[in-house]
Amino acid sequence: MTQTMTANGIDVQALIETTEAIKGDDSLAEFTFRARSTWEEGTYNGGEIGTFTHAGSEDQSRAAAFALHGDEPPVLLGANRGPNAVELLLQGLAFCYAVGFAANAAAKGIEITRMEYEVEGDLDVHRFLGLDGQRPGFTAIRARGYVSSPNASREQLEELCQYVQDTSPVRDSLVNPVPVDTTLEVV
Amino acid sequence: MTQTMTANGIDVQALIETTEAIKGDDSLAEFTFRARSTWEEGTYNGGEIGTFTHAGSEDQSRAAAFALHGDEPPVLLGANRGPNAVELLLQGLAFCYAVGFAANAAAKGIEITRMEYEVEGDLDVHRFLGLDGQRPGFTAIRARGYVSSPNASREQLEELCQYVQDTSPVRDSLVNPVPVDTTLEVV
Repeated sequence: MTQTMTANGIDVQALIETTEAIKGDDSLAEFTFRARSTWEEGTYNGGEIGTFTHAGSEDQSRAAAFALHGDEPPVLLGANRGPNAVELLLQGLAFCYAVGFAANAAAKGIEITRMEYEVEGDLDVHRFLGLDGQRPGFTAIRARGYVSSPNASREQLEELCQYVQDTSPVRDSLVNPVPVDTTLEVV
Repeated sequence: MTQTMTANGIDVQALIETTEAIKGDDSLAEFTFRARSTWEEGTYNGGEIGTFTHAGSEDQSRAAAFALHGDEPPVLLGANRGPNAVELLLQGLAFCYAVGFAANAAAKGIEITRMEYEVEGDLDVHRFLGLDGQRPGFTAIRARGYVSSPNASREQLEELCQYVQDTSPVRDSLVNPVPVDTTLEVV
């Protein structure tokens, strides 16, 4: 199989070089990502995703921070000025799977012509509202991918789907416990 | 303390009515939220957060789906056309804490005049790149809140911060394992 330098829009040469560089210097694999929120009123917040730390240095590639908006629907006391917090987790899982699939397919010479994910999660708000109930977070998440490839077998794509699950940062952060340290400053 | 119907922009009367309604009918607490992604090229995906299911029915309150964009920075083979997948998790945690804080403060008659969250998470991409290493997801997340209130003591705000952590859907989905079922359709 001939592998071009770019596959699925992924720069395969850069992917290989990045991987090789990390083999020689573990610190190149270390990232600290960030997000900020500023409360506006009620359930509405502005969000900001700007710089991150890579290998101990601040990444300067973003000309400006990304602006997000978070809100609840009316049934949860908001005005739909943005998606809500738990929906962002589901969106993150969809994006994570898609990036993993596209990049790993490219590395294996598998061409992707279509890829969509539908993710849904069940949640019960008893605990959020201060009532007795099951856990406050998602009790189950289901993700379904739809992928087309002109040069890979069903078996190859299913194997890739499993590999992507095993190495997905977002899936791992959901299926395995992440320590979350929370502090408050009264200002 | 006199409690107005609206506090911190939260309709307290609606909050009480919602809580009472759920006490009478558990199914009113049940939600299924959704997100979709459509792959564009490389690490770039379009995202869509539209309707959700509440108590067995499709919510119709959103005139249109929210459009999101996900991408990676150049160091992770993208072009910064949007925040990446793991950054959305951090943004979700910030929004979740803020909504929980504003709503529960309102229920307690605590007025909030300023609230910001800074969230950061450490992640190592060895496993994502197919190399041996620690878990692919976040190894640690740190959240720091900054809150001002003209009528609450530091102790009351710290107690509220703990309560919000204990009942936060996003925090719970990170600190405790969520089952994620992933399927692939070859199309």
